[in-house]
Amino acid sequence: MAQNEFSEPHRVVYYETDDTGHLTLAMLINLFVLVSEDQNAALKLTTDYIHSLGVGWVVTQYHLQVDRFPEIGDQVTLKTRATAFNKYFAYREYWLLDTEGKQLAYGEGIWVTMSYATRKIATIPAAIMVPYGTEPVKRLPRLLRPEKVDETATSVAKPYTVRYFDIDENGHVNNAHYFDWMLDTLPAEWLRQHQAVDVRIRFENEVKYGHQVTSEVAHSNAATTQHTVKIGATTAVLATIDWQPRR
Amino acid sequence: MAQNEFSEPHRVVYYETDDTGHLTLAMLINLFVLVSEDQNAALKLTTDYIHSLGVGWVVTQYHLQVDRFPEIGDQVTLKTRATAFNKYFAYREYWLLDTEGKQLAYGEGIWVTMSYATRKIATIPAAIMVPYGTEPVKRLPRLLRPEKVDETATSVAKPYTVRYFDIDENGHVNNAHYFDWMLDTLPAEWLRQHQAVDVRIRFENEVKYGHQVTSEVAHSNAATTQHTVKIGATTAVLATIDWQPRR
Repeated sequence: MAQNEFSEPHRVVYYETDDTGHLTLAMLINLFVLVSEDQNAALKLTTDYIHSLGVGWVVTQYHLQVDRFPEIGDQVTLKTRATAFNKYFAYREYWLLDTEGKQLAYGEGIWVTMSYATRKIATIPAAIMVPYGTEPVKRLPRLLRPEKVDETATSVAKPYTVRYFDIDENGHVNNAHYFDWMLDTLPAEWLRQHQAVDVRIRFENEVKYGHQVTSEVAHSNAATTQHTVKIGATTAVLATIDWQPRR
Repeated sequence: MAQNEFSEPHRVVYYETDDTGHLTLAMLINLFVLVSEDQNAALKLTTDYIHSLGVGWVVTQYHLQVDRFPEIGDQVTLKTRATAFNKYFAYREYWLLDTEGKQLAYGEGIWVTMSYATRKIATIPAAIMVPYGTEPVKRLPRLLRPEKVDETATSVAKPYTVRYFDIDENGHVNNAHYFDWMLDTLPAEWLRQHQAVDVRIRFENEVKYGHQVTSEVAHSNAATTQHTVKIGATTAVLATIDWQPRR
C-alpha cells in the first residue's frame, strides 16, 4: 500500500443500518471519516495535535458513488487515500470494499483547515501534510457539484432543531446528520424501495447547536432529488442525489 | 464462560461519542443489544428464525449502572448473559468492561416476546430459550423502576417527530433513540459536565414512524432527572436518571 493510503476492516452492525437492514448513507460518511481519522492517528496526526496548530479539518464537498449498500453482519474494508493537496485544499478518496475487494462505494472529498481563531479557512499547515508523503500540486481534481435547484419543481420542507447529540468536537453539526435531515423529507416507503447511487453535496455554512434548520427536497425527475438545508435564508448545505430501485 | 454467556471486543469510535468524546448513553444501549444479538446469532437464534415463530423480542425495562463512559479509541469488552426466564419474561444481564476486565457499566433488562399477529405479549417459545441452557424459573429478579414523577417539580418539554431513521426492523422506534429525545431536553453545558450513573427506564407503549412525541424532563433534585416521553396523553416511556459531575 502506498504511504498515503490506509485501510481497515469493519463489520456492519444493526445500529448502522436502516429498517431494511442496509447501511445508511449517513453511516457511510461516518465510516469514510473513521478510516481517515484512523490513518491520521497511525501517522500521529491526532486531532489534539492538529488542534494544537490552531486549526481543524472541515469538509466542503463530497461526491459519492454507491454500487451497493452492505447489510447487517457484512464484513467490509474501509480504505482511504490522501491523494493531493495545495495551499488551501486537500483532495481525499475513499473506498468501501467487500471481502473479495470488490467496490461497494467510492467517495471523493475536498477538505480545508479552519482557523479556530477566525473561524475562516487557513493555509494548510505543512506539518499535517508531510507525513502522508503526498506532493503538493497546483490544480486539484474538481468534484461534481450539486445541480442548481429547479425552482419549478414541487418541493417539501421539514423543520429540524439541532440537538446536543448532533454536534461534534468542532462545535458544529457532524456532517452525517445532514443526511438524516435531507432523507427524512422523503417518504419511508419510497426510501425502502430506492437506494442512492450518486451523491453530490456541498457544505456552505456551519450549523450549530440550537439552530433551527429547514430541510427542503424537490424531485427534479423520478430518479433525482435536490436538497437544501437552510438556517433562515442562509444555505447551509446543497445536495443532489440520484436514486435507483433497490435490487 | 457459561453456556448462557457471550462476550466480544469492541472499539469505541467517534460516531458513538458525544462532543466530550465519551460514549453516549444511547450507544451504550446499542452495544448491549449488539452483544445479545451476536450471542443469539452464535446460537443460530437469528432474527429471521425468531420471526418465523411469529414473534419478536421487545424490551420492557432496563436498569443501568455506569461507573465510567469509555472514550474515543478505547478498546472494551461487551458481555451478556441470558440469566433467567419464565413463561412470559426473560431477564438478561450486560457488562461493559475495560481491557483489564474492570467494570465500566452494568445493565439488566426484562424482555418479552411480542406476537406479530396480535402485537401483544406471547408465551416465550421454548425453541428460542433452550439453546441458552438457562433453566426456567418461577420468579424473576425485579428491576428497580423509574420513580413516580414529581408533579410539583418544574419541567421542560420538547416536541419530536419520529423520523424514518429512528425505526428498526420491528417497525417501531429503536430504543436507543428515546435517550436522544430524553437527554436533549437538558442543556448542552449541563450534559458536558455530568454523566449518568444510574438509569431506570420502562417502555410502556410503542412509538411508530410519523408519531409526534413530547419529551418532558423534571429535576426532582440536583442529582436526579425524571423523564417522560408521551404520544398525546399516552405515556410511551418513563425514566429516572441519577447524575454525577464528570470526572
